[in-house]
Amino acid sequence: MTESPSRRALLGWGGAGLALGAVAAGSAVAVSDSGGDDHEPSTAVEFHGTHQAGIATPVQDRLHFAAFDVTTTERAEFVRLLKDWTEAARRMAAGRPVGEGAFGGLAEAPPDDTGEALGLKPSRLTLTIGFGPSLFAKFGLAGQRPEALIDLPQFPGEALDLARSNGDLCVQACADDPQVAVHAIRNLARIGFGKVVVRWSQLGFGKTSSTTPDAQTPRNLMGFKDGTRNIAGTETDRLEKFVWASEQDGPAWMAGGSYLVARRIRMHIETWDRTSLQEQEDVFGRDKGEGAPVGKANEHDEPFLKAMKPDAHVRLAHPDSNGGSTILRRGYSFTDGTDGLGRLDAGLFFLAYQRDVRDGFVRIQRHLATDALNEYIQHVGSAVFAVPPGVRDADDWWGRALFEGK
Amino acid sequence: MTESPSRRALLGWGGAGLALGAVAAGSAVAVSDSGGDDHEPSTAVEFHGTHQAGIATPVQDRLHFAAFDVTTTERAEFVRLLKDWTEAARRMAAGRPVGEGAFGGLAEAPPDDTGEALGLKPSRLTLTIGFGPSLFAKFGLAGQRPEALIDLPQFPGEALDLARSNGDLCVQACADDPQVAVHAIRNLARIGFGKVVVRWSQLGFGKTSSTTPDAQTPRNLMGFKDGTRNIAGTETDRLEKFVWASEQDGPAWMAGGSYLVARRIRMHIETWDRTSLQEQEDVFGRDKGEGAPVGKANEHDEPFLKAMKPDAHVRLAHPDSNGGSTILRRGYSFTDGTDGLGRLDAGLFFLAYQRDVRDGFVRIQRHLATDALNEYIQHVGSAVFAVPPGVRDADDWWGRALFEGK
Repeated sequence: MTESPSRRALLGWGGAGLALGAVAAGSAVAVSDSGGDDHEPSTAVEFHGTHQAGIATPVQDRLHFAAFDVTTTERAEFVRLLKDWTEAARRMAAGRPVGEGAFGGLAEAPPDDTGEALGLKPSRLTLTIGFGPSLFAKFGLAGQRPEALIDLPQFPGEALDLARSNGDLCVQACADDPQVAVHAIRNLARIGFGKVVVRWSQLGFGKTSSTTPDAQTPRNLMGFKDGTRNIAGTETDRLEKFVWASEQDGPAWMAGGSYLVARRIRMHIETWDRTSLQEQEDVFGRDKGEGAPVGKANEHDEPFLKAMKPDAHVRLAHPDSNGGSTILRRGYSFTDGTDGLGRLDAGLFFLAYQRDVRDGFVRIQRHLATDALNEYIQHVGSAVFAVPPGVRDADDWWGRALFEGK
Repeated sequence: MTESPSRRALLGWGGAGLALGAVAAGSAVAVSDSGGDDHEPSTAVEFHGTHQAGIATPVQDRLHFAAFDVTTTERAEFVRLLKDWTEAARRMAAGRPVGEGAFGGLAEAPPDDTGEALGLKPSRLTLTIGFGPSLFAKFGLAGQRPEALIDLPQFPGEALDLARSNGDLCVQACADDPQVAVHAIRNLARIGFGKVVVRWSQLGFGKTSSTTPDAQTPRNLMGFKDGTRNIAGTETDRLEKFVWASEQDGPAWMAGGSYLVARRIRMHIETWDRTSLQEQEDVFGRDKGEGAPVGKANEHDEPFLKAMKPDAHVRLAHPDSNGGSTILRRGYSFTDGTDGLGRLDAGLFFLAYQRDVRDGFVRIQRHLATDALNEYIQHVGSAVFAVPPGVRDADDWWGRALFEGK
């Protein structure tokens, strides 16, 4: 593994006078060589591939997620933006600044890159784009909307804030350094000025679902391990079966893509914190310390669902209770200050990838209508996106198959 | 240096059956031995000392800051809370859960600790308490209010949101892992239920001011290095002169303490990002890439103030322009979603410690009235706190000198 150079070394800003071109070109190769499976938090994840990075990629520590609305009505302008975004994403994922980096001679222009990630490592940054249902009402795309990209039905108990829901587009930025993730979204928003506008965004920390089987399962803000039986990024069979859309699923432009459901789930943590340990463990169907299913000793022991209360979360969410349905979860905890009533505005920003939203999130969430956990949580934001396949090479760009059919 | 054990190893939750007492007692010693100057992000910082940790301590990566209002009117109940908080803070700083940790036999009670930091390292957690001006109107404390704890004057251009300003108390939680910082504030809020209520809170990331002279200076969200000439935690002379309140300063209970000014500074980053590099560098008085003062080659070169524009930020904020005044800055970047107008709600959560607010922040901020930077920022939240001296030993507690005069 070659450790990539720092972002700072690649930049000739402010007359520092580096021979930039040669350095940057060589580094990009080194970065590409390091691959995406390495857990070293400073490395780069390969941007190109059959699938977009940021789905099966081992979960990074931090998230900045943004939903955008498209404001331009010009198809060509929007396509130009997708190409510009792709190029910027390609550079940032490699730990390089946006633009050519030689700013010394262009003092009269705004910098191509906002600069706050200079000197920081690539930090396993991944940028993953998705297209929302409303996008397909624009640019003559109606006929291309996948059947699987449904408008989500209403679920009991939810109280969705439209200001934190939906969007024509989304970009999920994940990195081990929050400043790298924030920098990436901010630069995409900057590049999109006049063409798209940020509709809502969400910062997340402390990944709650591990896609790395050997790593310790992280805990959510209820203090329970979350993601014990999640689909691992290395489980090719389950990924093919449950996560990646195939050519047969249609439309053709989505082959190798996936569908993302994002839900902002507020936790009533002050109520939860005054609930007995027994009740907490009954609600989940696992013990709090080890994470073992009811009646079992270890976290990874096979759950015996009938030993759990009928409304236990693990019992209701288990694939055996949902005709085998399962989803790849990639959620993050959030804490967004207080709610004006002295309570922390905290919870889980739930991100789930699946081959078909109807067989995945919708089916499971319907079954969770009687979940004992519902007393302690509320879904307050919601969005769904078609996540196109990966950018194959340096000539490819986000959404090319959708717009050009190839 | 002894690496402290993980939080998980110290807990007997859910019947895991560890011989807890012995393990925990031994570990606490090991943790205390590791000291507070070690930059290894997983270690513990010593909680006890002449000064509170979290001021001269090398800046950690993440912040969770909370301001509380006191709701109890019983002095004894409030003192009980300060003692309970101190004990919880002492344990959490050492990487241990709140309470005795033996929850196996108490399933009918809420857990003593909310659990989301189990298995995480101490992560250099520091917890620093401060007392706001409004606290001194309560509990018969009026005569104890320090003269240096003034109500801040109004500054030109500020637009303070009262819902994000002031507070009877504050706790600054800093750690290298955000989940550890969030966990700490959340557990203090839980312990304070019925006695205090969270008034506002702020998450921060990507420290903007280094208190470690050898570390690379971090960049703020404007892309500039921030904190080049900050007071380092190792500069005993400057700390004594500018940061720590002495016995002569009065009152006696504040000797070894400091005064904290917290300002939420929104950056108009979309405007900034469309500003030329030349203008950006003129505004700061440093170049963006290296951080060198105008006309100099290197970041740490002595600035020649007269070479800068008269309204350059570095020129106006420099001690030479403020009769020698200087402050210890410990700010963090924040990004709190969007503002409803498609702009990121992002900026700097500015934290400054000083021996006297009048000679420190107030003097400098008044001089910044003509700062060129003001076009791109706005102060939208404000608070000031008297930060008492450190908790000396296992029998001492936060605020004892204030309440008991010893």
